Amino acid sequence: MESNSKYFESRQKALRRKLVARKLPSLMVTKPASVFYLTGFRGSAGIVIWSDSEAILLVDPRYTLQALDQAHGVEVVEVRDGLLRAAGRWFKKRRVKRTGFEESSLTWAEFQALRREAPAAMEWQPAANLLETLRVVKDDLEISQIREACRLTAEVYEEMIGEVRPGISESDVAAELEFRMRRKGAEGAAFETIVASGARAALPHARASAKLLKPGELVILDLGAILGGYMADMTRTIYLGTPPRRVRSLYGSVLNAQERAMESLHAGVRAQEVDMAARSSLAQQGLADHFTHSTGHGVGIEIHELPRLGKSEKKRVPAGAVVTVEPGIYLKDFGGIRIEDTVLVTEAGTEILTQAAKDPWWIE
Amino acid sequence: MESNSKYFESRQKALRRKLVARKLPSLMVTKPASVFYLTGFRGSAGIVIWSDSEAILLVDPRYTLQALDQAHGVEVVEVRDGLLRAAGRWFKKRRVKRTGFEESSLTWAEFQALRREAPAAMEWQPAANLLETLRVVKDDLEISQIREACRLTAEVYEEMIGEVRPGISESDVAAELEFRMRRKGAEGAAFETIVASGARAALPHARASAKLLKPGELVILDLGAILGGYMADMTRTIYLGTPPRRVRSLYGSVLNAQERAMESLHAGVRAQEVDMAARSSLAQQGLADHFTHSTGHGVGIEIHELPRLGKSEKKRVPAGAVVTVEPGIYLKDFGGIRIEDTVLVTEAGTEILTQAAKDPWWIE
Repeated sequence: MESNSKYFESRQKALRRKLVARKLPSLMVTKPASVFYLTGFRGSAGIVIWSDSEAILLVDPRYTLQALDQAHGVEVVEVRDGLLRAAGRWFKKRRVKRTGFEESSLTWAEFQALRREAPAAMEWQPAANLLETLRVVKDDLEISQIREACRLTAEVYEEMIGEVRPGISESDVAAELEFRMRRKGAEGAAFETIVASGARAALPHARASAKLLKPGELVILDLGAILGGYMADMTRTIYLGTPPRRVRSLYGSVLNAQERAMESLHAGVRAQEVDMAARSSLAQQGLADHFTHSTGHGVGIEIHELPRLGKSEKKRVPAGAVVTVEPGIYLKDFGGIRIEDTVLVTEAGTEILTQAAKDPWWIE
Repeated sequence: MESNSKYFESRQKALRRKLVARKLPSLMVTKPASVFYLTGFRGSAGIVIWSDSEAILLVDPRYTLQALDQAHGVEVVEVRDGLLRAAGRWFKKRRVKRTGFEESSLTWAEFQALRREAPAAMEWQPAANLLETLRVVKDDLEISQIREACRLTAEVYEEMIGEVRPGISESDVAAELEFRMRRKGAEGAAFETIVASGARAALPHARASAKLLKPGELVILDLGAILGGYMADMTRTIYLGTPPRRVRSLYGSVLNAQERAMESLHAGVRAQEVDMAARSSLAQQGLADHFTHSTGHGVGIEIHELPRLGKSEKKRVPAGAVVTVEPGIYLKDFGGIRIEDTVLVTEAGTEILTQAAKDPWWIE
């Protein structure tokens, strides 16, 4: 743990600068992903109050020992009558006039509980994007965790894929993938593993079902491990049998779209340009209408975080960002094809972290 | 699906009565568990607006087909520019003056998005407890799902437990339990399976770790399957080896506390009396200080729901409630023992749904 302190110090320093820039004397951090990022504490409940003069982590007695063990750069304060009440009281005692808070995770009821204890005239400034923006650029500690999660995910996929065949159910394949990730040390699956075959592959949000895989079907497999609190996200599509010409052509189009998007991705590119690279490549094949989602999203402590690689995202992707690149096409009653990698953007270019084969992609 | 309609009709009728009793002309339902309970729709995003004259389910295009397929008793309305905005507009168009909403799941940011579109003078009434209270009494459809989830969980435990032995890691045991639940048809684990051995068993919230099981250790296993959207919750504690006298005595005390709590549990009992039955039984053995949580909680669509079986819960437990009964003791540096079953409260008595052996509880 000691050797990781410098990373947390540096994140906390960056937060301090942001608070000064926004003239915010204080920030209340309630979202577990944010608390983990800022302090290293991984409990499910804890509130950080960050101010000019103090940095505290409020936890209930269940988590005191864990917080003392994990948290960097904050004073751990044990609370027995509710974290929100304690936070409110802290604001009152310190006569805080204004604080930022995470408006997209704090519930209405929690906000009221807080306000009951806090100074009546206190000003509450929505500031969820503050930490979310900081989290876009990953530090070396984060990159090494994501790299490991991606390596493990790709390895499990490659070891497993040879065993996928007609007659096995989607949910058995999903269960086996998740089991193997855990056996290799993953803390769990970053999301419910998707195995969608045949016509079901035409639904971008299909879950693994009891349906059996059949010859002549496309199968989308979307999986990712969690390791050290960081996530991987990878999709491969396979065909059960010898792919007919149309399927070959469609697969080639999606792979090509992914390659175009990868080529366009570099430090400083506008997010929408990466999306457009994939989109226009598919459009040239007359497939634009079948690409019904955006090209990618950031990955890290959460499976969907900033930046978004979407049509109208004008922001630039910085070096240190980790994003998915995942064009896909979905044809009603026919099936779907999606190819997704988790990619690190560096000063020098990009690095694909989910190194699993895309070819051969059929199982004879 | 057709044959299940009557259950949803009856839930919706009960809701209507509650709204009349509270003089609420409208209720906005945003929490996925509530939307599922009320309509059968299992998508991750959807808003139900329930009023005197109309009942609609707002979904985005990802979920239109699924909503049309699953939802009972509501008109499905597809929305392309944000569910909350659409809900706000609906309130404006209908000139709604007052609505209930689910304050413990709606975030501050969501509430603001809603208010921007809704009539400025509209009154918002926190009403999360309305559906949560309705959900306490399970109907036959729910009971059959919970029963199956519990049966599957108990079966996996009994099949697996003979294979648990020193030298296996906690996380391998957890992975194997979750894998077997899925192979038997579970949609997933109701919560991260806990396997906590030796001194780690003294932490009520320990996760499964890479630690290997060792002879002479207590091991707490806490697991539950999800099936048809309903959950099971069961804990067993085993000892690796021939238990010494002290361990036998402590195990007997916890088992006895669970039996006392079970005996006290019946339709109409105050929740706190069930808690007190377990607590005073442990107190007689001088173990009261080591029982650091409450005796149980409701289980259904969520793993923790009403009623709570805690010290200060004066409400009565009705027939049709499904609750856990789970006394436990935690001794620093020594380990822990918890025994938990999911139990259905009936007019006639109680029925233990997680039928897995509690004896022998040691593995020689």
